[in-house]
Amino acid sequence: MANQCKPKLQLAMDVTNTADALSLVEAVYPFFDIAEIGTPLIIEEGLAPLEILKVKYPDKKYLADTKIVDAGYIEASSAFKRGADIVTVLGVADDKTVHGVLEAACAYHGKVMADLMHVTNRIERAKALESLGIHTICLHTAYDVQQIGVDPMADLTEIRAAVACPLAIAGGITLDDVERAVTLGADILVVGGGIVKQRNPRQAARRIIEKIEVIS
Amino acid sequence: MANQCKPKLQLAMDVTNTADALSLVEAVYPFFDIAEIGTPLIIEEGLAPLEILKVKYPDKKYLADTKIVDAGYIEASSAFKRGADIVTVLGVADDKTVHGVLEAACAYHGKVMADLMHVTNRIERAKALESLGIHTICLHTAYDVQQIGVDPMADLTEIRAAVACPLAIAGGITLDDVERAVTLGADILVVGGGIVKQRNPRQAARRIIEKIEVIS
Repeated sequence: MANQCKPKLQLAMDVTNTADALSLVEAVYPFFDIAEIGTPLIIEEGLAPLEILKVKYPDKKYLADTKIVDAGYIEASSAFKRGADIVTVLGVADDKTVHGVLEAACAYHGKVMADLMHVTNRIERAKALESLGIHTICLHTAYDVQQIGVDPMADLTEIRAAVACPLAIAGGITLDDVERAVTLGADILVVGGGIVKQRNPRQAARRIIEKIEVIS
Repeated sequence: MANQCKPKLQLAMDVTNTADALSLVEAVYPFFDIAEIGTPLIIEEGLAPLEILKVKYPDKKYLADTKIVDAGYIEASSAFKRGADIVTVLGVADDKTVHGVLEAACAYHGKVMADLMHVTNRIERAKALESLGIHTICLHTAYDVQQIGVDPMADLTEIRAAVACPLAIAGGITLDDVERAVTLGADILVVGGGIVKQRNPRQAARRIIEKIEVIS
């Protein structure tokens, strides 16, 4: 069930203020599909940057990386009301929290991505999350452990075989990983440093988009 | 090692805008020790409400319920720079993330509370978190599961016996729980609905403070 649609590029904005987020999107636009308001930016400024970006670039989708772990309905509603198309919930959250987030998604016509970060039994939990109604599952290598050489695509094949819903892959992904990720069945490539930390972020994003076009 | 100091009351502000947070603190002040900027408020407005409250009520301590699960140094630094005295990290986070949060705490003279929400082996993880240098461990029953009759103080005795650091108890705590929580060794009582949802929040907070005075 992999790659029914052309894979998408999600631009992870791991910046900590609105000015930097605006500069980044301005530099990279239109070479991404989904703009991710990263958790560090939400902690600093809440959802205001999402609203500002959405007014300026309304043709793109917006993901609020809320990493919800409790108060599912309340927190997801906040993000959808402020314009998020997608919110994230942690896979470690209780099923009741996941339910709450999904209820908010129904109410506000949004989508929910479940982040498998720190889930111990990823295959089993991915199946359970899909059964609960989660729209996209994200296999995410934490930023803090990327330095120790974890393969961000470990388990991708198994999870792809286990669930039918779209899969996202996040955590240290660069242009060099695109072909393998797409081949293994990733539907959304979440790229932060692989764009933001490159000498020419616009060119880096365009190359990823072009690579996706060629191989899919 | 329980209750070396008089137990503290942490006011959990589970509101979603600054105006409501200000009204709440105005109503309850000075009957709390720590003002908690709740996760739903951070998602909506970032850390601005913390700065505003700290200017108005500088004699209180402020906890940013950031529930950090990745990018430990970056996210904790943000909160400390904006005036948080305490930040929260999830116990399920990787040790490297916990290290990052603690490094930021050293750099900015802050403290770190680790939230055991969704930790599967709470005793073992509490010990490990204390070894890593965590200042306070919080036994937290998720808001979304409080309705199903979970005892918020399950494991409190075992965790009290396992670690020497201060313990906080959170999730559905009311005046009726104060005596038991303190007797079992809680050093910080985190109270949200038990104050906010009472007919007279100021009176509810004062009664909790008075109860703590009597029994400790």
